[in-house]
Amino acid sequence: MASIREVARLAEVAPSTVSRALNGSGYVAEETKEKIREAVSELDYVPNQWIRNLYRKKTGIIGVLAPELIHPYFSVLWSYLENELHRHGYNMMLCNTSGDPLIEREYLDTLKRNLFDGMIIGAAFLPDENYTEMEKPMISLDRIIPGIPLVTSDHVQGGRIAAEKMIEAGCRKVLQLSDPEAKTISSSKAGTEFIRKMEEDGAEVITEGFTWNEVIHYPKAMERARTILAAYPELDGILANDLCAAAFLKISHEMGIHVPRELKILSYDGTFITDFNYRTLSTIVQDMESIAQNAVEALLKLMNHQPLVKREVFVPVYFKEGDTL
Amino acid sequence: MASIREVARLAEVAPSTVSRALNGSGYVAEETKEKIREAVSELDYVPNQWIRNLYRKKTGIIGVLAPELIHPYFSVLWSYLENELHRHGYNMMLCNTSGDPLIEREYLDTLKRNLFDGMIIGAAFLPDENYTEMEKPMISLDRIIPGIPLVTSDHVQGGRIAAEKMIEAGCRKVLQLSDPEAKTISSSKAGTEFIRKMEEDGAEVITEGFTWNEVIHYPKAMERARTILAAYPELDGILANDLCAAAFLKISHEMGIHVPRELKILSYDGTFITDFNYRTLSTIVQDMESIAQNAVEALLKLMNHQPLVKREVFVPVYFKEGDTL
Repeated sequence: MASIREVARLAEVAPSTVSRALNGSGYVAEETKEKIREAVSELDYVPNQWIRNLYRKKTGIIGVLAPELIHPYFSVLWSYLENELHRHGYNMMLCNTSGDPLIEREYLDTLKRNLFDGMIIGAAFLPDENYTEMEKPMISLDRIIPGIPLVTSDHVQGGRIAAEKMIEAGCRKVLQLSDPEAKTISSSKAGTEFIRKMEEDGAEVITEGFTWNEVIHYPKAMERARTILAAYPELDGILANDLCAAAFLKISHEMGIHVPRELKILSYDGTFITDFNYRTLSTIVQDMESIAQNAVEALLKLMNHQPLVKREVFVPVYFKEGDTL
Repeated sequence: MASIREVARLAEVAPSTVSRALNGSGYVAEETKEKIREAVSELDYVPNQWIRNLYRKKTGIIGVLAPELIHPYFSVLWSYLENELHRHGYNMMLCNTSGDPLIEREYLDTLKRNLFDGMIIGAAFLPDENYTEMEKPMISLDRIIPGIPLVTSDHVQGGRIAAEKMIEAGCRKVLQLSDPEAKTISSSKAGTEFIRKMEEDGAEVITEGFTWNEVIHYPKAMERARTILAAYPELDGILANDLCAAAFLKISHEMGIHVPRELKILSYDGTFITDFNYRTLSTIVQDMESIAQNAVEALLKLMNHQPLVKREVFVPVYFKEGDTL
């Protein structure tokens, strides 16, 4: 097999220049790079994809920071993202942080060591500078991080439609599962707008926070639903993500509360699980396919040093009729 | 930055020897490798993880061929696999083949180009030789491929327990969704054993094949359930995977068929979605965590050239009581 010296000889440059070009470190004139490329190709110097990618400064891999793989919202989103990346010739490395900042930090370090061409941030539990210091093409899917383009659902619209539908259904005292303190999370805007609109119409909104565990573990979500329904017997409506809404529907049946006559339930996400119970959940649908397409499109532009028309993309949501409103 | 020549000079070997060691091509004596390692380290020659991995002949990445990311059986399995690989210091690259042999072929080519240290085959739609020719550490999770270790549920036990439970519940004419032609698929043994045991007890089993679409797309599964329940009004039992069983439960309610009085439903997989309807599905549970642990343990042994005690691991399944039997 050819050595780096033979490549240098054929390209008529110093071996250290070949090394610089291969490592993408330091300046090498474009004309010189071209000569090195030809020599590498002629001598079949590059034995495998990895070095070839280094030479092109590309790995063909996009890292995706994912907090979770199982919750239908995430599994559907990762599936669409994978399809979309594959369609553009990229592989997806799914980095499951399990919502743990330490694991996330480890993955960010991997990214720093040049393993990826770009990254999609689907989980972000660290201070902003952990992301902004990366100097890599990155797109965020929910967390608002200064300097990093955002692709997310139009959650203000989502909150407004949710309120309109619940008012229309006659709700006067509803409970929403939300985390209104998380001001840097785009999806929390749904809750804020929901409250504003409900109160504007004279309805009462109780907000209950939730733990990460309750959002992703169905048995925990059922337990929480049981506690809440026992604590607030006067509620006439619930707004919650798909998995928690499914838990409320199930527990209502168990407790003998008729849905929708005594309690209306509106879910937020609109994945396939809204269709799993004997009553189909009425839902606000996030267009995951469009989010994936927009995120990959923006990331490819960043990677190719093309300008983004918009630094923030808000994908419209829509209401899907079910049996629970 | 140091050049390969400087490394060679310090290690007192020829640059081509350094190149051979870095590329893992051709013979380099262990003592010489050690000297090169020291020189590389002293000169800080290795600028990034990729070259360092090449040098160690490791990438730290395990490829997982996945047919699907959304079906709860798969999303739960990939989640456990990811946790287990991460625990051992490996990243997981999830390659979603969407059940398409062409996409799978593309991913296998990526694997050939040295991108992975090993692979877990969760989807396999190509002839055996596509896998056996790889000469990489590999574990198969369902498909029986000569020469490749298998880690899977004990589906013979699963089929037997399913039959016992349905006989016990009084079923005399049941329908199972299965693909009995797929003789190379370990999970198809559940259906074969189920039929044998049911017929031994004098019950009748109707087997209906299914398309991939019906297994993974809930609306398709519901459509199929509707067709089947209309075509076989005399059925008193259904055995189907979680998602299809959920569809049968939902459609039974819609058609006014009482579960379990008129129709018993037993699901096979036992993921969290068995708990989504007003009635909890009785289910045969596959221990996905143990499958993931066994698969990763076997793969690590292969990668470290350690012998496997067993070339086939069958993880026990168990019955979980619900409201549908």
